[in-house]
Amino acid sequence: MLANISLDKVLDKETFKEIMPPLQKKLAALQQRVRDARLPVLVVFEGWGASGKGTSIARLVNPLDPRHFDVLTMGKVSEEMLRRPFLFGYWCRIPAAGQITIVDKSWHRVILPEEQVKWSHSEEEINAFYDDVQNFERQLNQDGMLIIKLFLHISQEEQARRFKALEDDPSTVWRVTPNDWAQNKKYNAHLDKFEQMLAQTQTDETPWHIIEAEDKRHCAVKICQIITDAIEERLDNPPPLPDEQPKIDFPRILAGVETNRNIRESQYKKELDFLQSRMTRLGHKMYIRRRPVVIVYEGWDAAGKGGNIKRLVAELDPRCYTVVPIGPPTPHELSRHYLWRFMRRMPKDGHFTIFDRSWYGRVLIERVESLTPVPIWQRAYDEINEMESHLTNHGAIILKFWLHIDKDEQLKRFQDRMNDPAKQHKITEADWVNRDNWDAYEQATDEMFAKTNTPHAPWVIVESNNKKFARVKVLQTVTDALDAAIK
Amino acid sequence: MLANISLDKVLDKETFKEIMPPLQKKLAALQQRVRDARLPVLVVFEGWGASGKGTSIARLVNPLDPRHFDVLTMGKVSEEMLRRPFLFGYWCRIPAAGQITIVDKSWHRVILPEEQVKWSHSEEEINAFYDDVQNFERQLNQDGMLIIKLFLHISQEEQARRFKALEDDPSTVWRVTPNDWAQNKKYNAHLDKFEQMLAQTQTDETPWHIIEAEDKRHCAVKICQIITDAIEERLDNPPPLPDEQPKIDFPRILAGVETNRNIRESQYKKELDFLQSRMTRLGHKMYIRRRPVVIVYEGWDAAGKGGNIKRLVAELDPRCYTVVPIGPPTPHELSRHYLWRFMRRMPKDGHFTIFDRSWYGRVLIERVESLTPVPIWQRAYDEINEMESHLTNHGAIILKFWLHIDKDEQLKRFQDRMNDPAKQHKITEADWVNRDNWDAYEQATDEMFAKTNTPHAPWVIVESNNKKFARVKVLQTVTDALDAAIK
Repeated sequence: MLANISLDKVLDKETFKEIMPPLQKKLAALQQRVRDARLPVLVVFEGWGASGKGTSIARLVNPLDPRHFDVLTMGKVSEEMLRRPFLFGYWCRIPAAGQITIVDKSWHRVILPEEQVKWSHSEEEINAFYDDVQNFERQLNQDGMLIIKLFLHISQEEQARRFKALEDDPSTVWRVTPNDWAQNKKYNAHLDKFEQMLAQTQTDETPWHIIEAEDKRHCAVKICQIITDAIEERLDNPPPLPDEQPKIDFPRILAGVETNRNIRESQYKKELDFLQSRMTRLGHKMYIRRRPVVIVYEGWDAAGKGGNIKRLVAELDPRCYTVVPIGPPTPHELSRHYLWRFMRRMPKDGHFTIFDRSWYGRVLIERVESLTPVPIWQRAYDEINEMESHLTNHGAIILKFWLHIDKDEQLKRFQDRMNDPAKQHKITEADWVNRDNWDAYEQATDEMFAKTNTPHAPWVIVESNNKKFARVKVLQTVTDALDAAIK
Repeated sequence: MLANISLDKVLDKETFKEIMPPLQKKLAALQQRVRDARLPVLVVFEGWGASGKGTSIARLVNPLDPRHFDVLTMGKVSEEMLRRPFLFGYWCRIPAAGQITIVDKSWHRVILPEEQVKWSHSEEEINAFYDDVQNFERQLNQDGMLIIKLFLHISQEEQARRFKALEDDPSTVWRVTPNDWAQNKKYNAHLDKFEQMLAQTQTDETPWHIIEAEDKRHCAVKICQIITDAIEERLDNPPPLPDEQPKIDFPRILAGVETNRNIRESQYKKELDFLQSRMTRLGHKMYIRRRPVVIVYEGWDAAGKGGNIKRLVAELDPRCYTVVPIGPPTPHELSRHYLWRFMRRMPKDGHFTIFDRSWYGRVLIERVESLTPVPIWQRAYDEINEMESHLTNHGAIILKFWLHIDKDEQLKRFQDRMNDPAKQHKITEADWVNRDNWDAYEQATDEMFAKTNTPHAPWVIVESNNKKFARVKVLQTVTDALDAAIK
């Protein structure tokens, strides 16, 4: 994409003075329309060192209301960031509805030589990287975000000239680093990497725009033009809702589960003791080996999630785990992609995060209660699988538990809660409503198993009529999986 | 406080087995009461290396519902944290209403030798540190947070014995660092530092509890006892609202301001150009010298804050500043100390944060509209001054602008907005209500000036009937202040 670009485009001062101000005015007006339409906009600046990214961003935001845009500079990857999946920092800071976020150096850079400790990656790593990037951009785009990707291109000679000019000025000499010169010396090798990166992440929905950046006026006008055009086009033609997928029958799984699995009291105590100390040891090992662990609890109301989680973490070092209860999303959360609120809670390497309910709410309660349009929750299976692979690509261990009880057992537990003043806070009107929707939930759960039970993030159904049996099964499954993962 | 502590307290196994389970049960029940009462609880663990902080925390949380507590380990201070005031990380993670947060190593450690690059601080630095810590704890306590501070104490011999035992076990050898042995070798010097730290941060409301930690059973029981007692005491005797302060007259300041200050068009253009490029240069200097800058905009509705901010940042590198518009607090924000939402937005060293409205809302709109009880907003003047000194102690430059227009000018601007379709979104019912309360706002503003105009964070009244004059005045004031600060 870069090889055939002619870099000799020049814009004279007079034309620039004529074209630029109305363009900037248009951009300022569009910012208000972006806010009114609650459109999230993500503008990505990539390109050569000294190609003018900083200056271009400064010029771009000049006509904008500074209260409603955000500039995201990732700079050198911090140690903190290295202990997370590489998209984590970007996920955490995606624009909210109506917000414009400008990224100076983006997620694409992870394969660039200067960002890496080592020069080259295995083919497998690179493929996984591109999968993650393509999924990330596609998901945000599908969710309604406008993504505009700009690559600022200059020649080797021009780059060298700019580095020298910076070095000649005492007030800017600090901006040129040995890395910069290394890039200039190996310009062609870098060009190949850039070409690969651009080609692999080029899509119709989120295309790259190559900006000839040798002439600063041409560069400024082209950037402003591309962005105003893209925003206007999107505001005038908002993408339609996708089509609903035809409903098909999924194998019935829950109906075949025998819920009454028991364990003798003496056996329970023995196994609990044994498994909890195994858990302590494995927790330390995960910490030392810096493996993150994600555990999801879903299941019927009153299935015993709280008590089960408590036994799971009882002997874990509390500095190494967090339990995250998931309730209905807040307005703040609703103004972003629905995975945002989960991604930002994902564990640092070496830590555990246990979700008490999770992103699966999208295909359970949001589906059953029609809180989300059909094509949107239908799309979520892919989104979920992709998010989970992004985590496992990074080294995470993911386990998902469905705590299963039958309808009679649930009724018994509801009644117990109603009759016990100490437990009354645990039962609400919503629980009874969910119970009325039992069959719809069962159908949704079966489809969820069929579509999201992946080898890297498997579902485990836990027979939970007997709470003690359920606790031992979860502990056994988790410790076995952790053990296997670090063998 | 440590010198006279006898460390030979021992609890036998039988007594322990008798006392501990009911205590743990009580703690579990109290957790639910804490949630119901929306009490925020902060438990601080300090003490010697190998005194058993980790084990004690693990034992403490064992009976708790893991969904509703949080363990905060600061560990080694990260580079990110060094670029913020030292209380920043703690401020960001204070418990919300009904939440229990347990801190493993606390803000008190900033003066400890092993936490510091250099062994000793200047007396001035140490005094500023204690001021900040005392204010932090007092503010949270006054706001209704229960703070329980525990210091785990062991002797030099016991510490050495524990380090050796850890080293003798291959599975724990990694936990002993050269720093640990350094502490043991210089036990007495550390003891002096700890004594100083404890004495200086000991108050009636947030006392230290010394835990004799040589005997693990005694240690566990005492910790659990102290915490259950403290929580129970607080739940049974919630602190009363403080008394209202008598109202006194404050010097009238706004009434004497001449709002009609003008500037010629040609002069405006010249000065704007000059000051904005001065701003660019000073922005770079702040970045290189890692000085954070906080700028607050308050003022009458329609005084021109938005346009003024735009000119202020126009030539700043957008990667180095953030403009934060402040609206009404969300429920999420209301469940914490009111300064929380501002503290977490404070700039990293070398960056600018510009607040469009701010924490002064507490003593302006919250006072005038009776959104906050009188003694609570009366208390806020001190809280604000203390927060601002915490920032300036860290090196921040703070400037606060009041954009002042008169009542006639405001009416004119409101009417313009009503008549211009492009500006109608900028005027709401609330603006008219505020206008009706003009005199009450003026009184509140005068008191605010009297109480929060400090040398380190001064107020500047900006005559704003002429917007251009106002823009130049702010730019002039900011650039002069930055220039002076780095001279």
